[in-house]
Amino acid sequence: MARVVVDVMLKPEILDPQGQAVQRALPRLGFEGIADVRQGKRFELEVAEPVTDEALSRVHELAETFLANTVIENFTVRVESDGTSGGGSGAAQGAAA
Amino acid sequence: MARVVVDVMLKPEILDPQGQAVQRALPRLGFEGIADVRQGKRFELEVAEPVTDEALSRVHELAETFLANTVIENFTVRVESDGTSGGGSGAAQGAAA
Repeated sequence: MARVVVDVMLKPEILDPQGQAVQRALPRLGFEGIADVRQGKRFELEVAEPVTDEALSRVHELAETFLANTVIENFTVRVESDGTSGGGSGAAQGAAA
Repeated sequence: MARVVVDVMLKPEILDPQGQAVQRALPRLGFEGIADVRQGKRFELEVAEPVTDEALSRVHELAETFLANTVIENFTVRVESDGTSGGGSGAAQGAAA
């Protein structure tokens, strides 16, 4: 199985109250230097390998019609080769023991 | 500004009703070949450049204490160098005109 990730974010011009709530709380929590916070959705789809262009365009279609509201949201579709959560180089994992 | 992305996903052993709801709807929408769907949160943080190790460890701490519930969620922290939404190589952008 390969993992295809669909990230859905509000368009830049759309107000993001959730992201603003997080950003306003940061100073109180002692976090400085973060100019902006945006919150969106991440979908991980397990797809049979090999991930053909045709399969990717189907996922793109799925994202456009079902996973994102393209009036107010942008989305991206990408294949995460190694199948681990949040894979890709340079991703520092984190979880409580 | 650099963009640091925090992805928060439910741990694999935790039931994901939202992901299951999406997965159950797929055949009805004519989408086959997707074995599993998991839904999580994506945070995009705009951080002053250069993104030092110290700044990244602060974001990691922020994710651990505030953005993720580490009892049931895993998270990853990574720097998206080019600053575009959902950047990184191979990401196909999508949005209604």
